[in-house]
Amino acid sequence: MRGLSHVQSVVERRNTIPILSNVLIDAQLGGTIRLMATDLDLQIDETIPAAVDQVGATTVSAHTLFDIVRKLPEGSQVVLTAAEGKLTVVAGRARFQLGTLPRDDFPMIAEGELPTTFELPAETLKQIIDKTRFAISTEETRYYLNGIFFHVTDDASRMLRAAATDGHRLARVTVPCPDGADAMPGVIVPRKCVAELRKLLDEVDGSVGVSLSPSKIRFDLGQAILTSKLIDGTFPDYSRVIPTANDKLLKLDPKSLMQGVDRVSTIATEKTRAVKMALERDKVVLSVTSPENGVAAEEVPGEYAAMGFEIGFNSRYLMDILGQIEGDLVEVHLADAAAPTLIRENDSSPALYVLMPMRV
Amino acid sequence: MRGLSHVQSVVERRNTIPILSNVLIDAQLGGTIRLMATDLDLQIDETIPAAVDQVGATTVSAHTLFDIVRKLPEGSQVVLTAAEGKLTVVAGRARFQLGTLPRDDFPMIAEGELPTTFELPAETLKQIIDKTRFAISTEETRYYLNGIFFHVTDDASRMLRAAATDGHRLARVTVPCPDGADAMPGVIVPRKCVAELRKLLDEVDGSVGVSLSPSKIRFDLGQAILTSKLIDGTFPDYSRVIPTANDKLLKLDPKSLMQGVDRVSTIATEKTRAVKMALERDKVVLSVTSPENGVAAEEVPGEYAAMGFEIGFNSRYLMDILGQIEGDLVEVHLADAAAPTLIRENDSSPALYVLMPMRV
Repeated sequence: MRGLSHVQSVVERRNTIPILSNVLIDAQLGGTIRLMATDLDLQIDETIPAAVDQVGATTVSAHTLFDIVRKLPEGSQVVLTAAEGKLTVVAGRARFQLGTLPRDDFPMIAEGELPTTFELPAETLKQIIDKTRFAISTEETRYYLNGIFFHVTDDASRMLRAAATDGHRLARVTVPCPDGADAMPGVIVPRKCVAELRKLLDEVDGSVGVSLSPSKIRFDLGQAILTSKLIDGTFPDYSRVIPTANDKLLKLDPKSLMQGVDRVSTIATEKTRAVKMALERDKVVLSVTSPENGVAAEEVPGEYAAMGFEIGFNSRYLMDILGQIEGDLVEVHLADAAAPTLIRENDSSPALYVLMPMRV
Repeated sequence: MRGLSHVQSVVERRNTIPILSNVLIDAQLGGTIRLMATDLDLQIDETIPAAVDQVGATTVSAHTLFDIVRKLPEGSQVVLTAAEGKLTVVAGRARFQLGTLPRDDFPMIAEGELPTTFELPAETLKQIIDKTRFAISTEETRYYLNGIFFHVTDDASRMLRAAATDGHRLARVTVPCPDGADAMPGVIVPRKCVAELRKLLDEVDGSVGVSLSPSKIRFDLGQAILTSKLIDGTFPDYSRVIPTANDKLLKLDPKSLMQGVDRVSTIATEKTRAVKMALERDKVVLSVTSPENGVAAEEVPGEYAAMGFEIGFNSRYLMDILGQIEGDLVEVHLADAAAPTLIRENDSSPALYVLMPMRV
């Protein structure tokens, strides 16, 4: 059930090519079966122990087989038998006969050479994903922003960086470059691969093997191997949008700010979701004005000594960022009401965020 | 928050009449406020304790106020002040000013006389609803089936009965007639009232006061009072569809049957959801055949001594009924493949179900 839950998640609900609805079940010598699924861009390959009487492989509807298996009583033993174009599934008093498609028709992603190979602690990879994925663009026309960009810095420090942006906000995480990654090309890992990888990481301790070429990436998670095509595009040179001279610093509790933004934005209209921040001596006043609903305001105490001014943000975007700050203090580096704002825990935190203001 | 959660649930998300989006807040002498909401057919009236400085009433968006209140920190004190067409909501450092509409424009359901009055244990009312509501029709053209029909039997036993049907299945619950209900007219309580009542019952111990006329019903749940218009129509004489001469009796474990039906119906197509039951000596063989997906079968042991035959049911409908059987045995009284089938725990159980077969 666990194996099938992973593979069926890769399978799209609607497919014009019938075999893409199927899971490849490959019973192998040595007491294992491999379960594979693909959407032609992303492939999962999971190996699970099994008592194999007879080697062989077939393909069968992934969602149907998963639905059958998850309805079986806890601890059931399942017997799979493939013959004459059918797969028979027997468990307890239940018996299913499912249509199959030949294993030879099942498309496999040709990995080719994956010259860059390194290991990352599963915990680090989780953090990288959690702190960047919310900023991935969903605009299909800007396909080169539909993923997380992984690259190694040019400078002497040789750090591994992950960045995502949708043009309104940018999230960047920097971690020490693992052995073997120094010469890696910059790669854009697609949103769906990120999502499936993140789910699988919840079941992984220790580290994850990463292998990549300029066009493919493979994550080896032990029981499961995830292989994905990379986005064939150029990620913009995002370093230019990270402000370096923002001279107004607000320091405050990220949770208080987030909850305040959440509360005042209750009355914001779905469309704009704009929240105004009025910076004053050692506090910020959050406010929202909605022609339909009324006005809302909340004061959040903080450290602020620069000149007072007002700036607007998309409340959803601001909350997404604040939700990723773990400590008791967040630094908000501002310049003026029209300039990109830098948000981070402090100057040694791995994650850094840039948020474009909105006119309010 | 609890009071508003009840009242906002009655308020429809989209309203062409603006005041129907609002909750009436009525601060009264003696330290209570009343919260009222209506959709013109169903009205909730909830009384909660409050420190009232100044009596008065206004109306404000129910969903907005509820959203504000549920985002406040646990244990917050909320101050509501109405003046000059605005309601000011202050809690902690947050302050909201919301647009209001005059209380005099708020429509109230005129209850009129409610001559029938009785009490029902909350637990009994919950059981009545749970065991019948799934059979309520959703076909708007058959508006007289869009609720639960409550009536008192004509015969000497004077029992209170609740019934719901959508033409494919019927659910009926019979309980002793409470004092005061003997002369009640038959009434059809609409689906939405049933749903709101059921939610409120989770917070009620003891008993519920019921008052009704041929056109209105009121449920007094202590803190909350629910008033609903009744469906103006004639519930069909359903007793005629309850079979009395089904001579083939199958007795088996309802959970085993339900789980078996659930498993074999995995491969049923969304459209028909048909499951076939082949009755054999002391067992039933469930099966589904799908041109797309294949075949599934499961044997469930039971007591059956009559002639073997096959009958088909909508698997969803069968599972809805089996899910309401509490004991270890269910009786399925059959006649033939085309006749209504009677399902009940035993001849003394309050609930009884009739299910129409499907051709398979």
